[in-house]
Amino acid sequence: MTIFNAGILIIGDEILSGRTQDTNANFIAKQLTLAGIKLEEIRVIQDQKKIIIDSVKLFSEKYNYVFTTGGIGPTHDDITSESIAEAFNKKYEIHKEAFNILEKYYPEGEFNLSRQKMAKMPSGINLIYNSMTAAPGFILKNVFVLPGVPKIMEAMLIEVLKNIKKGKPKKIRTINTNLYESKIAPFLKNIQLQYEECSIGSYPYFNFLSKTGGVNIVLSSWTMKSLEDVEGKVIEMIKLNGGNYSIV
Amino acid sequence: MTIFNAGILIIGDEILSGRTQDTNANFIAKQLTLAGIKLEEIRVIQDQKKIIIDSVKLFSEKYNYVFTTGGIGPTHDDITSESIAEAFNKKYEIHKEAFNILEKYYPEGEFNLSRQKMAKMPSGINLIYNSMTAAPGFILKNVFVLPGVPKIMEAMLIEVLKNIKKGKPKKIRTINTNLYESKIAPFLKNIQLQYEECSIGSYPYFNFLSKTGGVNIVLSSWTMKSLEDVEGKVIEMIKLNGGNYSIV
Repeated sequence: MTIFNAGILIIGDEILSGRTQDTNANFIAKQLTLAGIKLEEIRVIQDQKKIIIDSVKLFSEKYNYVFTTGGIGPTHDDITSESIAEAFNKKYEIHKEAFNILEKYYPEGEFNLSRQKMAKMPSGINLIYNSMTAAPGFILKNVFVLPGVPKIMEAMLIEVLKNIKKGKPKKIRTINTNLYESKIAPFLKNIQLQYEECSIGSYPYFNFLSKTGGVNIVLSSWTMKSLEDVEGKVIEMIKLNGGNYSIV
Repeated sequence: MTIFNAGILIIGDEILSGRTQDTNANFIAKQLTLAGIKLEEIRVIQDQKKIIIDSVKLFSEKYNYVFTTGGIGPTHDDITSESIAEAFNKKYEIHKEAFNILEKYYPEGEFNLSRQKMAKMPSGINLIYNSMTAAPGFILKNVFVLPGVPKIMEAMLIEVLKNIKKGKPKKIRTINTNLYESKIAPFLKNIQLQYEECSIGSYPYFNFLSKTGGVNIVLSSWTMKSLEDVEGKVIEMIKLNGGNYSIV
């Protein structure tokens, strides 16, 4: 079975300084999982040309799909597009259709030089249209270049994902139990050893006020036809240990 | 001036699947900025031994400080500690003090084998104490190994940062204006060219309901004695363009 994989590059000093809590990676991650694409890595990198170029090249070779967010606006610190042009030895030039879209969007006399910068892209790209604020993103090879503003990025991503090759969605099943993680750990390990194609994750949580807690056991597989057997074993194990369970 | 830099490795399939929105990187980022440590990269990586080993080695060479979160619990998918042992060619063995701390914490008879796993660490480490749930993290060379549960990680990080070498905090100043980004872009670029040691970031925001927006202009520098001059230029520029401003 073909599995398509992906990497995300979040370009932005404001994430690294802690000023902004990134939510784009999580949104993309969820959508990729739903779409049957396996996200294997997220990197948050500095607004620096060499770093962007090296990261884009590496990710483009390593993953079927690369998604970048940030750095395609009108200001001097928006250097994603020119960096990606350089990464793939493309010219960095005005894209006519993008220029026309932007020119139409702004009131007469307000499509200034800075805004025109948003129409500068690597040669040979395909546009990703933006129904909210006009300024398009673009696709070059397997790299999808998206803006950093979440609402805009989200709308554009949803459109983009409609038109790319995907695998079958990952099968996922979450079982909650009131038992402590350390109690069920050896049993879970045994079940894991029996089902190599299924990844069994164990995510404990605590409520520090009520001093109660439990575990979410997440079964997931890209390749198995059904998770029923694994689920049965986990539930049986929880019952044998005197715990309660629910399917989340 | 010495600048200390850092990288963060978030270890966790649950972040990559989109199941969990990571908040640890943002918390650490903020604390590092306050502490005068420059965060240069964040990577979210899979729960896979080879990937963890390679990333830890690379980051340990590249950055003054490395912070990892996740993968030090009692279950089979918690492989951070053994991977880090392997990365540095250390034994992976019971740490006596960690064992004693955990043994004391759990009611008699409940310190089972899975829980004992949390006392297994690379040889030669220093413990990071955990005042909330006992299970310690550890420091090996320049790598700080922290848990994934945010409240616990946060408390441990705060303690850890008290005792490491830091630089002077980054100077930061944020100026908000109602002007649009594309209007001020060329002027900001000019100011940026005059002050190379100061990084001028421009972060637009939109309110999609009221259709209003503006920009936060963030001045920051690790090396300048004062940001007063740059701030003055930015405010002057905003006024000349007929905008309002406020210091955020």
